[in-house]
Amino acid sequence: MLSNQPLTPADISQVSITDPFWSKIMETVRTKVIPYQWEALNDRIEGAEPSHCIENFKIAGKITKNAAKGIYERDAQDKFQGFVFQDSDLAKWIEAVGYSLMNHRDEELEAIADDAISIICEAQQPDGYLNTYYIINGLENRFTNLRDHHELYCLGHFIEGAVSYYQATGKDKLLNAVKRYADLVDRTFGPEPGKKKGYPGHEIIEMALVRLYEVTKEKRYLKLAKYFIDERGKAPNYFAQEEKEHNRSPLWHDSYFKYQYSQAGKPVREQTEAEGHAVRAVYLYSGMADVARQTQDEELMNICERLWDNITTKRMYITGGIGSSSYGEAFTYDYDLPNDTVYAETCASIGLAFFANRMLSADPNSKYADVMEKAFYNGIISGMSLDGTKFFYVNPLEVIPEASKKDQWHRHVTVERQRWFGCACCPPNLARILSSLGQYAYGTSKDTIYVHLFLSSNYNTNINGRPVQLKVQTEYPWKNTVTIDVNLEKSHYASEGDSMNLAIRVPGWCRESSFMINGESVTPKQCNGYAILTRDWKSGDRITYEMAMPVVTVASNPKVRDNIGKLAVMRGPLVYCLEEADNGKDLHRIYLDPGTQFEETYDAGLLGGIVKLTCSGYVLDDSAWNSNTLYEAGSNMVFRAKSITFIPYYSWANRTPGEMLVWVHAINNCHPIL
Amino acid sequence: MLSNQPLTPADISQVSITDPFWSKIMETVRTKVIPYQWEALNDRIEGAEPSHCIENFKIAGKITKNAAKGIYERDAQDKFQGFVFQDSDLAKWIEAVGYSLMNHRDEELEAIADDAISIICEAQQPDGYLNTYYIINGLENRFTNLRDHHELYCLGHFIEGAVSYYQATGKDKLLNAVKRYADLVDRTFGPEPGKKKGYPGHEIIEMALVRLYEVTKEKRYLKLAKYFIDERGKAPNYFAQEEKEHNRSPLWHDSYFKYQYSQAGKPVREQTEAEGHAVRAVYLYSGMADVARQTQDEELMNICERLWDNITTKRMYITGGIGSSSYGEAFTYDYDLPNDTVYAETCASIGLAFFANRMLSADPNSKYADVMEKAFYNGIISGMSLDGTKFFYVNPLEVIPEASKKDQWHRHVTVERQRWFGCACCPPNLARILSSLGQYAYGTSKDTIYVHLFLSSNYNTNINGRPVQLKVQTEYPWKNTVTIDVNLEKSHYASEGDSMNLAIRVPGWCRESSFMINGESVTPKQCNGYAILTRDWKSGDRITYEMAMPVVTVASNPKVRDNIGKLAVMRGPLVYCLEEADNGKDLHRIYLDPGTQFEETYDAGLLGGIVKLTCSGYVLDDSAWNSNTLYEAGSNMVFRAKSITFIPYYSWANRTPGEMLVWVHAINNCHPIL
Repeated sequence: MLSNQPLTPADISQVSITDPFWSKIMETVRTKVIPYQWEALNDRIEGAEPSHCIENFKIAGKITKNAAKGIYERDAQDKFQGFVFQDSDLAKWIEAVGYSLMNHRDEELEAIADDAISIICEAQQPDGYLNTYYIINGLENRFTNLRDHHELYCLGHFIEGAVSYYQATGKDKLLNAVKRYADLVDRTFGPEPGKKKGYPGHEIIEMALVRLYEVTKEKRYLKLAKYFIDERGKAPNYFAQEEKEHNRSPLWHDSYFKYQYSQAGKPVREQTEAEGHAVRAVYLYSGMADVARQTQDEELMNICERLWDNITTKRMYITGGIGSSSYGEAFTYDYDLPNDTVYAETCASIGLAFFANRMLSADPNSKYADVMEKAFYNGIISGMSLDGTKFFYVNPLEVIPEASKKDQWHRHVTVERQRWFGCACCPPNLARILSSLGQYAYGTSKDTIYVHLFLSSNYNTNINGRPVQLKVQTEYPWKNTVTIDVNLEKSHYASEGDSMNLAIRVPGWCRESSFMINGESVTPKQCNGYAILTRDWKSGDRITYEMAMPVVTVASNPKVRDNIGKLAVMRGPLVYCLEEADNGKDLHRIYLDPGTQFEETYDAGLLGGIVKLTCSGYVLDDSAWNSNTLYEAGSNMVFRAKSITFIPYYSWANRTPGEMLVWVHAINNCHPIL
Repeated sequence: MLSNQPLTPADISQVSITDPFWSKIMETVRTKVIPYQWEALNDRIEGAEPSHCIENFKIAGKITKNAAKGIYERDAQDKFQGFVFQDSDLAKWIEAVGYSLMNHRDEELEAIADDAISIICEAQQPDGYLNTYYIINGLENRFTNLRDHHELYCLGHFIEGAVSYYQATGKDKLLNAVKRYADLVDRTFGPEPGKKKGYPGHEIIEMALVRLYEVTKEKRYLKLAKYFIDERGKAPNYFAQEEKEHNRSPLWHDSYFKYQYSQAGKPVREQTEAEGHAVRAVYLYSGMADVARQTQDEELMNICERLWDNITTKRMYITGGIGSSSYGEAFTYDYDLPNDTVYAETCASIGLAFFANRMLSADPNSKYADVMEKAFYNGIISGMSLDGTKFFYVNPLEVIPEASKKDQWHRHVTVERQRWFGCACCPPNLARILSSLGQYAYGTSKDTIYVHLFLSSNYNTNINGRPVQLKVQTEYPWKNTVTIDVNLEKSHYASEGDSMNLAIRVPGWCRESSFMINGESVTPKQCNGYAILTRDWKSGDRITYEMAMPVVTVASNPKVRDNIGKLAVMRGPLVYCLEEADNGKDLHRIYLDPGTQFEETYDAGLLGGIVKLTCSGYVLDDSAWNSNTLYEAGSNMVFRAKSITFIPYYSWANRTPGEMLVWVHAINNCHPIL
């Protein structure tokens, strides 16, 4: 539901992160990922498939310039190359650069980005159109294949990039360019007679337009976002009409998806289960949540909540991964969560965090922040190697190298992260979300400051127009203590201090928490999963927050077929896993005793510094099995004791490639019988 | 290894089957399947995709006749329709008819088959060529796409059909036709200069040519079979050359298969693991075993045994199903036996029985007959509905209707058998193997009669040129007693009787067996899994054989990832399963106690009469789970008692469609710790 106390998420510029866990990752993004991607966009990575992205813009710019001069000849080599959505990679890079500059000024990087923006803008058509695929291949066909050709998707990413860069630098060149393009789109699409009644095959423009509205205050952008959402999936189906008109065969006609692949099989207000391509789905839902919040559309918000609940209570991996099937990179059905043939694209977990943050703003409830935290600490950062040079598209929960090598249906599950993908959505998406982490950590409503994520940082915000700074210090997720120092700028406050609320999330995984203010225990009231500390705050007040963070075994709802009889191991927000490097081969033969005690050891030298877990467990013994026997009367339940080691899921695949497993078989000897 | 006492499998004409279990199935084939398939071949089944098979032959016959008359005009409607291997459906039908006529004379059916043979023969070209695809589409292209176009495969099936029909009726019209075609193939392919160095993309001609050799004694057919086997996969690869010559793109170039999809990636004598399309593989291996036996090729026989062992000890489902993946309908890798995404094509289990019977002939060892029995009683007959009107292509060991409906990677796993497939290989293949069951049950070597399968029947054979009849009576697989009456035609024997061996299989599943001769216990010596009864037999001697047939739980080798912690239930040769019709939904939540006692009840009214099994087990309780919780700290191992019912696997999917499960989770509370 829409709260009457909505939040404004933190601006990135309001948050300075000094966190031992995240700063390292963000620094890796700044110093490795962003420069590497720039090289990649310029086709300068040896051995990697060329991106062609910058090259496409240069060609489009030349064509545009020639057209302006009345020169219509083209060189034979003026070809568009790469995916139809190749432009978006540059947009995502600029967005990441913007965030990065907010965190860390860098003149050289800014100069490179300025040049890139010039290259982009030179390609823009007089009427505002800006998509290199059609500029190069023929403008007469633009907006005729919304189903597959990602024009509106690319615009969405450019809006995000332009806003980010504008917010970081105050430079509005790209912002003005995307506004002109968005205005063209607004003239082209809409309910008015003569306008196209279409919407994008791949969503993102919806949330981007809301962001553009928020920064420009131009209502037409919000209206256009709402139009794309409300028009989507209405009968007669736009994509079906488009197919007919252009004599195009239906996509996915031999599948169960049909138009639900892109959430266009029925009106969005009739969609209550997450279906189709997972990234598209959560991008759409994010846009829906934005529009619902900005237009106070309670009905739409309720649909968002139903979709949220469907995903997070029936279709989400314990890592925050979504999209169970490689077929269409898509959702399947409730409780279908295979661990080894999973898709769980990095971008889908990123999109889930987008959706979570938007739901949280509209309705501050820890159920959103819990999932956001789960995604950040597990399924998102698992997408990147610790050194920032390699990336996972697919984030499996069980890996059998032989299967990836010999079974076609496991082939998408790679055992090692890859350097750069032909379809390179995940690395730049990682760059942009990790550079913008600050906005996910905090939010402010009228009289309350929310702390969603726990990372060492300063958050500078305003309550009732008066500045407040929270200084958070923690070694989370390794340690369970968070201190928050409240700093008030004296001149703005009465000498007696001032009343406001601090709402600090009590994570769903945390069974016991304690708060002290200035060394004295307090028992805050809890509301929607947040501990609410209300008081006449004084500068220098210190909150000490402790969350009991024992290692726990976690079970799945028994409806999850693939996890029956298995347990996962968690500590705080972190999901753990077994890796062959620690435990040898045949991880599926390892059994965990639910009552086992775990030893927790911080190892600074291991995987960039992690708390590793060891415990005594069992391994299904096969010494009695003749290797020539496949089936045998009796039971093979004979166990040997074995010491087993767990590492955080996000850190897997940073050593010798091998097996990995999250859900471990469990001894069930202590079962109560009802 | 090649035995120095090889067997001759029974001729079908030597065996008359009166078995309560099998006669019903064979009668269904005779009265339902064969007539239905004739209608299907003639496109007379309403609602089914037309086969076009007979129509193709009629068109080809008209074209052939016109060509003979010098008339080269064609009607526009003279089109080949259906799969490129459509001819083979008619061949398989004729083969089944031949066997059926041996079991049961039927003048009307014979007349129909004679007509069909005339239609076939009218299409034959003056040089012997006989494949409607190329006769209709242009003979100039024949034998130019061995990789995909199944000409040699179709010939293989026609040889099998022609021999069967000749043996049944003495009529040699089709036999002469296929000899002429085989002679053309022999003139076209071979090591001699000017001949093509090819081999079929889909094997079967190898074993068919050996059969043609056996009936005609023409050595060139054996030599040609050996040529196809020895040439296969040699460098330079024939298919690669063919592709180059005809500018054809490689098949499976983006897969792990490459040419091993059709076992042509390396010379067959270097192939020690079963790879590629499972049906093709076992058809090839059957031909290899035939050639090895007929040419006394010990090396080739050893390869066959290695392939056999690889399949049966590492790549075979407990049902005798093979081919783990729908991708290429193929083998994957050792111990990869997923139960729900399985392929396990009916035809592959049939092919495994072919291979088994050939290995058994070359080397009488119960390891071959055990698997043959497993396939017959489980994975083969599961392919047909009890009423003979519907067929499974895929034989899963776990079925979740929602997955088949909503997950593309489960879509091939249908919950109900289908009437007739577009690619209709399985139903006619079932018809031909089930009509020829007799030849799998018995064999005779120089001085020994072998009983491989236990079915009520008379087997008339010869030992040292003297006739012997075994009269077998049993209610197997429901009951565990087999009586065998020995009948000797007196005039051929010395009055004192005559010494010979009866070798009776002691199944691998049987832990305790007993033999009586004329009511007196005997303890036969055992050799290669057979009990050898040696004696001066007299007419009227009666052997009473009892096999302990308790219900047992069966475990998998711990290397089988998908069966860890699970048990299957067997009784005698039959694998049992859980069906939703008996046990409700969510079969994956049922737990079996390995020590449970099963109640065995013969129910004449259930599923055509079966022994059903009931026991007390458990179900994983979810009453403590909030339906909105997906993951929860703790363990979900809380059980409720539940009575559970098992039915024979072959009989599943003959009631209301629903879930099915072979491998059931097991309680592991009684585990010994080593």
